[in-house]
Amino acid sequence: MKTITIAVDAMGGDYGPSVIVPAALQILAKYNALHLVLVGDEEVLRKELKARHACDQIRLVIHHASQCVEMGELPAVALRTKKDSSMRVAINLVKEGRAQACVSAGNTGALMATARFVLKTLPGIDRPAIISTFPTRVGHKNMRMLDLGANVDCSVDNLFQFAVMGSVLASAVDNIANPTVCLLNIGEEDIKGNEQVKEAAQLLANSKAIHYMGYVEGDKLYHGLADVIVCDGFVGNVALKTSEGVASFIRQLIKEAFYSSLFTKLAALFAWPVMKSLSRRIDPDRYNGASLIGLKGIVIKSHGGAKTQAFAHAIEEAMIQVEKNVLQLIAEKIEQLLKLSRS
Amino acid sequence: MKTITIAVDAMGGDYGPSVIVPAALQILAKYNALHLVLVGDEEVLRKELKARHACDQIRLVIHHASQCVEMGELPAVALRTKKDSSMRVAINLVKEGRAQACVSAGNTGALMATARFVLKTLPGIDRPAIISTFPTRVGHKNMRMLDLGANVDCSVDNLFQFAVMGSVLASAVDNIANPTVCLLNIGEEDIKGNEQVKEAAQLLANSKAIHYMGYVEGDKLYHGLADVIVCDGFVGNVALKTSEGVASFIRQLIKEAFYSSLFTKLAALFAWPVMKSLSRRIDPDRYNGASLIGLKGIVIKSHGGAKTQAFAHAIEEAMIQVEKNVLQLIAEKIEQLLKLSRS
Repeated sequence: MKTITIAVDAMGGDYGPSVIVPAALQILAKYNALHLVLVGDEEVLRKELKARHACDQIRLVIHHASQCVEMGELPAVALRTKKDSSMRVAINLVKEGRAQACVSAGNTGALMATARFVLKTLPGIDRPAIISTFPTRVGHKNMRMLDLGANVDCSVDNLFQFAVMGSVLASAVDNIANPTVCLLNIGEEDIKGNEQVKEAAQLLANSKAIHYMGYVEGDKLYHGLADVIVCDGFVGNVALKTSEGVASFIRQLIKEAFYSSLFTKLAALFAWPVMKSLSRRIDPDRYNGASLIGLKGIVIKSHGGAKTQAFAHAIEEAMIQVEKNVLQLIAEKIEQLLKLSRS
Repeated sequence: MKTITIAVDAMGGDYGPSVIVPAALQILAKYNALHLVLVGDEEVLRKELKARHACDQIRLVIHHASQCVEMGELPAVALRTKKDSSMRVAINLVKEGRAQACVSAGNTGALMATARFVLKTLPGIDRPAIISTFPTRVGHKNMRMLDLGANVDCSVDNLFQFAVMGSVLASAVDNIANPTVCLLNIGEEDIKGNEQVKEAAQLLANSKAIHYMGYVEGDKLYHGLADVIVCDGFVGNVALKTSEGVASFIRQLIKEAFYSSLFTKLAALFAWPVMKSLSRRIDPDRYNGASLIGLKGIVIKSHGGAKTQAFAHAIEEAMIQVEKNVLQLIAEKIEQLLKLSRS
């Protein structure tokens, strides 16, 4: 395996360096070919490393950045006033070719705006999207869904491009020969849905480049019917967050039910290993690391609330995308499709 | 309590008369003031009643209808070719004032198209919406969400009207003095969301008629932050169905985990009462009965897969809306708002 260098925004997220530094150390220990650049307040990072009996060395470099993008900051403000933020500098390192990918747990809007401004979109891609991986009911089969919130209004072309990008990502990272793609809709019949979705369905059905399978409804989102599910960013964000909300609601109800009496507390003791295996199966940590896809650079967004294990997983996702040459593959596929549509 | 007459489409849903007739008998036994008109194939219905040792009598009348709308039928086709369907005739009875509400478990699209065509919308309402009740994390507090799928694209005015209708329904049926309203969005900040949502937020914030509370995100949908949650029909449908999908996914995982070994099967025995109480809390049957709101008549849509208990609940919802004079209250509130906007 060739050396891979990843820039890490070490100041982002709810926990900053206290989570990101140990995550970096953990993942470095796992992969010998991995180099990390920790971007952020040098003094703070050095202290954090020291506390963990580590220091910067050949595979772990600190790159100083004097500013930090706040979680609630407006993307436009961050873009204008935070030119030396850890987030911006990490993205700059990718632009300059000094890192092959970057990872941040910071403000999603600011990350998207900055990445788009600094890196620009790939030729043939009008708008980048946010894509992430989810568990499904089918054994160990995962699915990827996009857009999860970067674009509130999407044209037919946007949806088509999302399908292409999702398809290439699933094919490269998950080694799926011909990934299946569904459009998220409010019914399975052809007449259902809004105009964009209906037209995108036509476009996808007519394209030989995409293995299009038709519509999928919200209740079958996790049925594993397709490798990639495409929707606009408003709908995708609502579907994603509603899923998190329902899972956490049910977790709360289970907890309350087990705590309600002496008998149920006893039952909880017995059921504990079962509940543990359930949590593992839908553990959000295992799925941490969304991609900002469609840019001339690999940018991975970690959940803001990610702990060490989860953040390490996001770095791993970046590493795999570099290794699998995802960027080049998307660019090639898009160029190929553009040529086809011109001929 | 005054007599209330409800027309029931006895042929709709996945189970038809075999579920609807016992549900009718059950609910009639509970409310002495209730009269039901079972609309459908007279022979079939009479047979079904006989099998249950019942017959038509003063509070239970059969009204023959020779056709039936299929579950997969296109709304436009049903509207044109099924003029004597049980669904259409039940709605006609409301139009003619022979029933004060109707209930159907049939094809949602056809029900909406037919109800809109026959009954028309209330003055000041451009488009009817689908609204239903959901549990929340807060004790026994419920919330109502609309639109759940009638309108894939909504204007700012549509969203505002949905807020008014939802608010009146919550106030009348749940006896809430000044129901709180939130807009479903993909962020809580003012700058988030699409144009319609942002403009609707402005309109709602400036209206004294609505107790507007701001945006709610998908992960807080069930937090009980508002009595009414407003969104367009595409987003609402995805949120609703995704919730069902996640709940059923988790149910499957729990089942699999409990069946995985002898020890976990033993644990299942202990945990059974806990799981039972959990299911009760989020039991979809208890929440069955969505309203087609905004029409000049009360139309309740039962889930197609509803069993006896659930269908009875949908009839009960129709009864309460008649009793609480919901139609009149919505009309008054809308008229009042229109007057205000004209003055």
